[in-house]
Amino acid sequence: MAHERIGFIGLGIMGKPMARNLIKAGYSLTVHNRSRGAVDELVRDGAKDGRTPRAVAEESDIIITMLPDSPDVQQVVTGPGGVLEGLRKGAALVDMSTISPMVTQELAKAVRAKGAEMLDAPVSGGEKGAIDATLSIMVGGPEETFARVKPVFEAMGKNIVYIGASGAGQVTKACNQIVVALTIQAVSEALTLAAKAGVDTGKVRQALLGGFAQSRILDVHGQRMLERNFKPGFRVRLHQKDLNIGLSTGKNLGVPLPATAIVQEAFTALQGLGRGDQDHSSLVTLLEDLAKTQVGR
Amino acid sequence: MAHERIGFIGLGIMGKPMARNLIKAGYSLTVHNRSRGAVDELVRDGAKDGRTPRAVAEESDIIITMLPDSPDVQQVVTGPGGVLEGLRKGAALVDMSTISPMVTQELAKAVRAKGAEMLDAPVSGGEKGAIDATLSIMVGGPEETFARVKPVFEAMGKNIVYIGASGAGQVTKACNQIVVALTIQAVSEALTLAAKAGVDTGKVRQALLGGFAQSRILDVHGQRMLERNFKPGFRVRLHQKDLNIGLSTGKNLGVPLPATAIVQEAFTALQGLGRGDQDHSSLVTLLEDLAKTQVGR
Repeated sequence: MAHERIGFIGLGIMGKPMARNLIKAGYSLTVHNRSRGAVDELVRDGAKDGRTPRAVAEESDIIITMLPDSPDVQQVVTGPGGVLEGLRKGAALVDMSTISPMVTQELAKAVRAKGAEMLDAPVSGGEKGAIDATLSIMVGGPEETFARVKPVFEAMGKNIVYIGASGAGQVTKACNQIVVALTIQAVSEALTLAAKAGVDTGKVRQALLGGFAQSRILDVHGQRMLERNFKPGFRVRLHQKDLNIGLSTGKNLGVPLPATAIVQEAFTALQGLGRGDQDHSSLVTLLEDLAKTQVGR
Repeated sequence: MAHERIGFIGLGIMGKPMARNLIKAGYSLTVHNRSRGAVDELVRDGAKDGRTPRAVAEESDIIITMLPDSPDVQQVVTGPGGVLEGLRKGAALVDMSTISPMVTQELAKAVRAKGAEMLDAPVSGGEKGAIDATLSIMVGGPEETFARVKPVFEAMGKNIVYIGASGAGQVTKACNQIVVALTIQAVSEALTLAAKAGVDTGKVRQALLGGFAQSRILDVHGQRMLERNFKPGFRVRLHQKDLNIGLSTGKNLGVPLPATAIVQEAFTALQGLGRGDQDHSSLVTLLEDLAKTQVGR
């Protein structure tokens, strides 16, 4: 195949299955990860071992990063032995991590200065979406670069949307995490009130699904609350971090986000209670504890 | 027809079309309203004029109330010349107003003391749902009384759900109003952030509808925000009042509702700005004003 050569940096819970799907789709892959285990696994699957981010960039036309947070991406791209040192003219850096839109725009500028282009392409859909290649991908950056990378996205996701200029993908992801968090809080406040009032919470969920209160969160996460199923899914501590991105972007731009701030504090409280690795639908347990009631059996 | 005789008290924006649909369905109706105009209209349509709530009760097997707030229902039921004075043994009082679950339970007790039964049956679906007889109806009270009144509900609504004991319908309605308000706030915070960041808010809405951020509010009210269509729909000042019900119920039961409290304050601010008669999707304009941006064209 005349595929472009791909570099993949960050082989965590999300990155490893995403990289595997690229190998399955026939791409030649050079991979890098801070710890060795995942690299060895992917080398057995046919990937090449890139010893440093710089080495990965030297051998790749398209370099994908899938890392936990803004400082990790900054370090891997601009740090010593980083991607920028090895970046080829005409290459594309595709950051699929969820990070700050402001950091994204700074990195894109540094990448352009090397004669390459950058896309921000954060995903939603979690580990299951990464494994099944059904991730939603929200993309910012030059539209020509999007067109070039699109076949690569299609090997990892399903709902692939080009939003706009550099940072637009990260802004969209921040918006997504705000809406999801606040909707979980909405369902939590409603069902906790119903439970404490002695009303059948299953019937309340069912009645509300038939009207303007309908949401995928009320459906899926509402059911989780009823069943006490707080196995992740998407972890409290990751959602807490993602709301940081929305809030710091808001602060930077002068956009007050009062309900987002409250829900972030609630996630912080859950972490303090040792529930940071539960599914984010466990937000309801904070209200339940305060109200001395329980939404589900 | 062997239909039960129905009394209808409260012929406002919602009550008038609901009463009309009962006449259309063949019921014999006695109506009462504080101001005369609506009574005269319905008398022309075939209803009898009940001069007082007491007189309405004396002539009816089922008495429906559709009034603005808890004190209005208390006055009409327990006040001088009120429903209780004329209530027949075996009658059913069906309060379709949106009021406090605690007030509902007090009234139900007084009604039972007269040898009658009460249902709380608040609705959602707005003026359009009332006219088209497609209201959602959430019902609390004795299940036998629900079975008896169900054909009457079916002449006014579509999605008719029995929830549980007295007050359960009002609790469910309060939950509905909490979830709707917080979801509007969620969409408002997200789209205002996107707008101020210079990102295409229409594309953000579209991308978010494909994932866990999906909701009927993001769909319908999100579109309203983009189109600047704040013609009600459901008015800010009514939603503000409905959140009062949720918050006072929460206070009474010891359930903290922090995000609901914030959104109620936002509705209060909108009223202060003279926007109390706009659609509740205009919640977004408060953030837009503070952030000096606009979500739609």
